[in-house]
Amino acid sequence: MAGAAIEQLIAHLSKLPGLGPRSSRRAVLHLLKRRETLLVPLLKALTVAAEEVKACGRCGNLDTVDPCAICADPERDDTVICVVEEVADLWALERTHAFKGRYHVLGGILSALDGIGPEDLNIAGLVARAREPAVREIILATSATVDGQTTAHYLTDRLAGLERIVSRLAHGVPIGGELDYLDDGTLSTALKARRPF
Amino acid sequence: MAGAAIEQLIAHLSKLPGLGPRSSRRAVLHLLKRRETLLVPLLKALTVAAEEVKACGRCGNLDTVDPCAICADPERDDTVICVVEEVADLWALERTHAFKGRYHVLGGILSALDGIGPEDLNIAGLVARAREPAVREIILATSATVDGQTTAHYLTDRLAGLERIVSRLAHGVPIGGELDYLDDGTLSTALKARRPF
Repeated sequence: MAGAAIEQLIAHLSKLPGLGPRSSRRAVLHLLKRRETLLVPLLKALTVAAEEVKACGRCGNLDTVDPCAICADPERDDTVICVVEEVADLWALERTHAFKGRYHVLGGILSALDGIGPEDLNIAGLVARAREPAVREIILATSATVDGQTTAHYLTDRLAGLERIVSRLAHGVPIGGELDYLDDGTLSTALKARRPF
Repeated sequence: MAGAAIEQLIAHLSKLPGLGPRSSRRAVLHLLKRRETLLVPLLKALTVAAEEVKACGRCGNLDTVDPCAICADPERDDTVICVVEEVADLWALERTHAFKGRYHVLGGILSALDGIGPEDLNIAGLVARAREPAVREIILATSATVDGQTTAHYLTDRLAGLERIVSRLAHGVPIGGELDYLDDGTLSTALKARRPF
């Protein structure tokens, strides 16, 4: 046994995705050995996160300010809204530096299996934002899964009649991907959507 | 970007072993989504750890009390001391429930490459404890690596003359291990140390 307080800390840490009981134990020892350089700064950062981070009332992104830094940035393009399932997807797109428009986080995905319907997602907010005069295009960046595509179809219906371009991400061979290892679905999609060289 | 405060939290988390930037980001989102059930309890457990956990003055184990719960337990066997490199090794042995004696954490291992000599480890404390009249056996549970075996040999020399049994863990085929996948060193050691069936 490692002492009740330490065991409890290990138990809490092991609830994080990617950390099992064994790696949590290693992480806790690592933290306890580097108290001043690692544990105390982590504690401070967690306290700030717990107290100050909130969801942006406009797009659903997480930030210490509301509206979030992206919504408040006057440099970004008001004509395009990129719709994502989760904040993690927004962050992934931001890391590419390839998109300079605005975002909208649905907060999930339609799923008959999990009983998640349109009223559980922030779709009303999206439709309201899509009506704003500046908006010209809505990019549906939901997952390339059955539920993701169902959600995209549903949103297309909801956005119909607003006279906005509704687009989606391209599907195909991932950059660096070897054909040999790709699934049949991706490969046949990439073949059908082939483009002139 | 995910906001400066969140980026900082991700950076701190990604310094833990087993967590890279990507898994830290997932973990932070997971925490922020479950603020009351996960983030706040984790924060409390980390605060307790930062403020109360200390190394046991006797054996080197980490606990909120000093001497630690193992050293303070009157039920444990005072005649055997099991010597380990790190607290993690002590915890690993405790999980087996196979050892009911006392422990001694060296706090590292002799390593010419890393410049770690006998004065960097808690060897003086071990020799002092080994002299106590109750002690009859010292188990050297250092790693089965070159440095671990060097450390074990050094400790054997230091403990010579005290009239204590000095033993080490058995080497051989791990339980559940397939011969085909074992390295030659383990296999030849297991063959040489074979025992009647």
